[in-house]
Amino acid sequence: MTSAPQAAARTAVRRARVWLTRAAEPGQAAMYALVRLVGPVEAVHLIRSRQAPPTVQSAVGTRSEDDRVDQDISVARRFGIRLVTPEDAQWPVRMLHPMVMATERGLLDIAPPLAVWVRGPVPLDEAVERSVAVIGSRASTAYGEHVAAEIAFGLADRGWTVVSGGALGIDGAAHRAALAAEGVTVAVLAGGLDRPYPAAHGALFERIAGSGLLLSEWPPGCAPYRRRFLIRNRLIAALSAGTVVVEASARSGTASTARRCRELGRSLMAVPGPVTSAVSVGTHELLRGGDDGGARLVTSTGQVLEEVGRLGEDMAQPPRAPPGSRDGLDALARAVLDSVPVRRAVAPERIARAAGVAVLDVLRVLPSLELQDLVELTEGGWRLSQAERRTGDHGAGG
Amino acid sequence: MTSAPQAAARTAVRRARVWLTRAAEPGQAAMYALVRLVGPVEAVHLIRSRQAPPTVQSAVGTRSEDDRVDQDISVARRFGIRLVTPEDAQWPVRMLHPMVMATERGLLDIAPPLAVWVRGPVPLDEAVERSVAVIGSRASTAYGEHVAAEIAFGLADRGWTVVSGGALGIDGAAHRAALAAEGVTVAVLAGGLDRPYPAAHGALFERIAGSGLLLSEWPPGCAPYRRRFLIRNRLIAALSAGTVVVEASARSGTASTARRCRELGRSLMAVPGPVTSAVSVGTHELLRGGDDGGARLVTSTGQVLEEVGRLGEDMAQPPRAPPGSRDGLDALARAVLDSVPVRRAVAPERIARAAGVAVLDVLRVLPSLELQDLVELTEGGWRLSQAERRTGDHGAGG
Repeated sequence: MTSAPQAAARTAVRRARVWLTRAAEPGQAAMYALVRLVGPVEAVHLIRSRQAPPTVQSAVGTRSEDDRVDQDISVARRFGIRLVTPEDAQWPVRMLHPMVMATERGLLDIAPPLAVWVRGPVPLDEAVERSVAVIGSRASTAYGEHVAAEIAFGLADRGWTVVSGGALGIDGAAHRAALAAEGVTVAVLAGGLDRPYPAAHGALFERIAGSGLLLSEWPPGCAPYRRRFLIRNRLIAALSAGTVVVEASARSGTASTARRCRELGRSLMAVPGPVTSAVSVGTHELLRGGDDGGARLVTSTGQVLEEVGRLGEDMAQPPRAPPGSRDGLDALARAVLDSVPVRRAVAPERIARAAGVAVLDVLRVLPSLELQDLVELTEGGWRLSQAERRTGDHGAGG
Repeated sequence: MTSAPQAAARTAVRRARVWLTRAAEPGQAAMYALVRLVGPVEAVHLIRSRQAPPTVQSAVGTRSEDDRVDQDISVARRFGIRLVTPEDAQWPVRMLHPMVMATERGLLDIAPPLAVWVRGPVPLDEAVERSVAVIGSRASTAYGEHVAAEIAFGLADRGWTVVSGGALGIDGAAHRAALAAEGVTVAVLAGGLDRPYPAAHGALFERIAGSGLLLSEWPPGCAPYRRRFLIRNRLIAALSAGTVVVEASARSGTASTARRCRELGRSLMAVPGPVTSAVSVGTHELLRGGDDGGARLVTSTGQVLEEVGRLGEDMAQPPRAPPGSRDGLDALARAVLDSVPVRRAVAPERIARAAGVAVLDVLRVLPSLELQDLVELTEGGWRLSQAERRTGDHGAGG
C-alpha cells in the first residue's frame, strides 16, 4: 500500500521527468549531473526559475518557459505510450550500469537517459535483459538483408531480444525476422513514438508495439532530426549485450556505434561481405580495426552468441574494489559511508540525518563511494555494496 | 677465372644436389641436417653406402640404389629447366633465411629446400625479392577470381612479383592478372616442371615460363601427389613477404598455409566474401583467428602493400645479438669463432685448420654461432656477422 503523500511525491517526480524529456536534447552531461545531484523535481524548479548552472540553462534555452506536461501525457496515453523512469521497477538498471559508471567517471561525452518513452507490452528491463543489436545500412543489398534476417531470426528463436533502429534496410530486416520467429524486438527511435519514421515502417512499428517495444528518449510529436540519430545510437549500444553491424558504407554512423560499444565495454561484431560492395566497406573498416580496436567477424547466430555469451560471463563478475579502499576516504566520506544501511536501501536525506551532515554533501559523496564499489544505488535508494556487506566492516547505519 | 679442380668440385656438388632432389621427398629435417653437416657430396656418399643416419636412410629407402642424375639433367635441359642450388648466386638467401633459422632452432617440422628446379628467364633471388603470394580455392567463384585478379594486377603493376600455386581457380586468376600487367609471376608447383599440372594450365605455364618462373622441388617426371602440395605450400609462404588468401573452403589447405606464415614471421592476409558463400568460409575462419592469431583483412592492393610494407621495414632490422654474447661461449666455440675471418668468407675446413680443431667440430659449432648472430653463411662460406665485424673485438682469423 502506498500513502497519499508518497503517491503525490511519485507523481511530482514523474511529471518532472516528462518535462525534462522535452526541455533539452537527451544525453547532455550537465543536465544529467544536475538531476543526479538534486533530483528531477528540484532540477525542474531550478531550471524554470533560471537558477540552474549556465550550461544546463543554455541547453534548455527558451524551453524553460514551456510546460506541455499535461499535453504530452495525454497524447502519449492516446497512443499507448508510457514513460519509464529510473524510479520504475522496470528501469533497466543492470544494462545501463556501465553507461552510468562511465558518465560518473567523466569518460563519456554523452549522458545516460533521464527517462524513456516506450510503447509495447513487455517490461523494459525484461525486454533488454538478454539482447543483441542488429543494425546496418538503409541502402542495404539483398545479401545484407538476408544475413541480417538469418542472424536476427536465430537470436529471437533462442530467446534473445533483437534491438535495432527501426530504419529501412538492415534494421527493418532484423525487426521483421525477430517478429517472424515470434521473439521480442525493440526499435529504438530518434523521435516521438506517435510519429512513425520512416512512414513506410508504420505497419512494422505497429507489429513491434504489439509484441515487443518501441522506445524513444523524445516525447510525442518530436521530429527525428539528423543529430538525434547519433544521440539515439548510444542507447542501442547501451541496451544490448553486443551490436552486430551487417552492412555499412564507408564513414557511416557505424564509427560512432563502434565507439559507444567500446566505451561501454559491449561487444562489437561485424558481418563481412563482398569487397566489391559499397555497403560492406564500412563493416570491413570495422573488421580491420586499427587504432580503434575493431570489431569481431561473425557469420552466424552461433558466432554472435559465442561472443555475447563470453561477455555475459565477464559482466557477471563486476570489478571488485581493492580491499581496504575505505582507508583512503576523507572524514565526510567516511561519515556518509558509516551511515549507509547494510541491507535496506534508503534515501540520501535519511543518510544525511544519520551522518549529521547536509543532504547536498551526501549527494556529492555517494557517487564517488559507488565508483569505489562501497555503496550501490537500488530502486529503493542507497545501501552498502555487496562486497562491503560481505566484509562486515561497517558502521552504525542500517 | 675458375681452376679445373674448382670447376670439378662444383660439378660434383651440383650433381649431388640433383641426386638428392630425387632421393627423398623434400622438407625432411634429418636429410637437411645431414647435408648441412657434411655437405651434399658427402651426404650422397653416406646414403649410397648406407652409412647415413637411419632416419635419412629410411626416408630414401630403395632409391639409394638409383642414379638418374644424367637423365634428369638431360630431360631438364630439353625442357629449359635448370637447377638452382644454395651454391648459386641466385639462391634466395634472404627470403629463405627465416626458414633456415627456424629449422636450426628446431621450430619447424619441415625443412628448407636442398635445391629447386626452375624454368624461366628471371634469376630466382630477383624474382622473389619483392613478392606477395595470392592463393585460394580451385572451386572459386567469379567474385573470388575478380578480386584475386584485381589484387594481383595491382601488385604486378607496382613492380611486385605475384607468387601462387598454379592451380585452377584463384591461383590461375592471380597468375593471369600478373601477366596482363606485364609483371613477374612465379608458379610454385608440386611436381616435375616437364609435366604441366593441371593439364588445362599448359598454355598458362608456357606464358609464365616466358617472363616469370615455374618452380618445383621435384625433378622432371615427378607426379604431383596430394601430399606434395602440403610440402609445396611452405615454399609459397617462404618465398613471399606475405600471403593473401582470396577464397577457401572450410578446413582447406589454408590452415597449413596460415601456420607456415606464422612460423616464418610472414604476413597472412585474407579477403572476406559473402558469408553465404562456401568458399569464403575458410577465409572467414582465418579472419576470426582464435588461438592461431589469424589473418589480416584486406580488400585491395593498397591494403596488401600496407601490410607487407610494414613487414618489410621490420625485416630490414634483424634482431641483434645482445652485447657480450661471446662471453657465454665454451672453449671450442670460442676457438672456432676466433678463427672465422672478418670479411672474406671461407670454408669450414679452413676454419678448422686455423682453430686447430676437427672439421666436424667446426660444422657442429657454426650453426649455433649463426643463431647468436656472431657469424654468417654467405655463398663463399662463413665469415663474421655484420654486427661482429663492427665490434672490432675479434680474434686471429681472416
